[in-house]
Amino acid sequence: MKRNAPEATTRRLSLYLRVLSELADQNVASTSSRMIALRCDLNPSQVRKDLAHFGGFGVRGVGYDVERLRQVIAGILGLDRRIGVAIVGAGNLGSALADYPGFNSGGVEIVALFDVSPDKIGTRTRLGRPVLEVASLARVVAEREIQLAIVAVPAAAAQEAVDRLVAAGVSAILNFAPTRPAVPERICIRHVDLKVELESLTYFLALREAADQAR
Amino acid sequence: MKRNAPEATTRRLSLYLRVLSELADQNVASTSSRMIALRCDLNPSQVRKDLAHFGGFGVRGVGYDVERLRQVIAGILGLDRRIGVAIVGAGNLGSALADYPGFNSGGVEIVALFDVSPDKIGTRTRLGRPVLEVASLARVVAEREIQLAIVAVPAAAAQEAVDRLVAAGVSAILNFAPTRPAVPERICIRHVDLKVELESLTYFLALREAADQAR
Repeated sequence: MKRNAPEATTRRLSLYLRVLSELADQNVASTSSRMIALRCDLNPSQVRKDLAHFGGFGVRGVGYDVERLRQVIAGILGLDRRIGVAIVGAGNLGSALADYPGFNSGGVEIVALFDVSPDKIGTRTRLGRPVLEVASLARVVAEREIQLAIVAVPAAAAQEAVDRLVAAGVSAILNFAPTRPAVPERICIRHVDLKVELESLTYFLALREAADQAR
Repeated sequence: MKRNAPEATTRRLSLYLRVLSELADQNVASTSSRMIALRCDLNPSQVRKDLAHFGGFGVRGVGYDVERLRQVIAGILGLDRRIGVAIVGAGNLGSALADYPGFNSGGVEIVALFDVSPDKIGTRTRLGRPVLEVASLARVVAEREIQLAIVAVPAAAAQEAVDRLVAAGVSAILNFAPTRPAVPERICIRHVDLKVELESLTYFLALREAADQAR
């Protein structure tokens, strides 16, 4: 059943999973592609198509069983097992990410943060995640079976952080540093570029101002 | 010269701007599409095509003047003017974003954070941005000419935050809440969905594990 899918599809699966979790919390037992689509701001036929990609789960005229579909999608997204996560960089952003509610659910476990600053090493985040010295990264990654890491260091420190993580055996990296570190081909790296997101909005504002002046 | 462009193009312009700023900091006077492409992990012909979209800036055989191209792209992205920004939600993430270096450069100015919690109102972030009560949002947005807002509240509070911002006259919203609030058509909203990003990596790990087992 589990097959490779385009990234856009798996991103939508994450949205469906969130909706299904909300419905489960509200004790809703069954749902429809229309309801899921409405909550995700998508077209119902898109939802049906995405779910069909992984095998049809709906019963015609009855819809989807919320709990079963939730479990199936969680399985597809690899959330039905423990996933140990390390965060490199215990600054404002790294600390906020360590305690972010969405990052500590399903099987995901933020194991520790790593930093070079003596001021931070030995402290804990508000929710109690420990800040360890970066020299212990390889050992902790091995001992705690960490496969995934989040990089939240300044741009100038990002390549070194990524190199350490790769050497330690981490396979997947979510990079928040405003740069594009190089990784071996077997490593999956995704970039969350906050400044790019902000500038897509300043661009919109500039365009609209130009349009207003032309009117 | 300033024309509407696909979102993917403007996102790449942000990357080019970052590279040009780095080159300017290193006192590099001229550059090439090849150099920019290398630093952005893109194809040189893509860079040339993007820049041509906004009017050709390069001189054949000489390349691009770093400082001039930097200023032109900053202008296209609307960064050549002051942009007042409000953040709704002064929790870990909102506070981290308020002090994020990339959000306080060019003309961008984080004016204030807004929260409902009496514990937070009246405090300041590490870099000194004030946390104000959300009831003062409309007044501060008007007085400080805030056009752009960042939403960093829990999902359940996001729609109300967005409604307040829209009523106050904000035109562009960067949403970090894990939900999709509804906005009027004239408002530009972008979503940074941290959980979706993380789950694209857990999906990769699950896929790879399945492939390893099949081997």
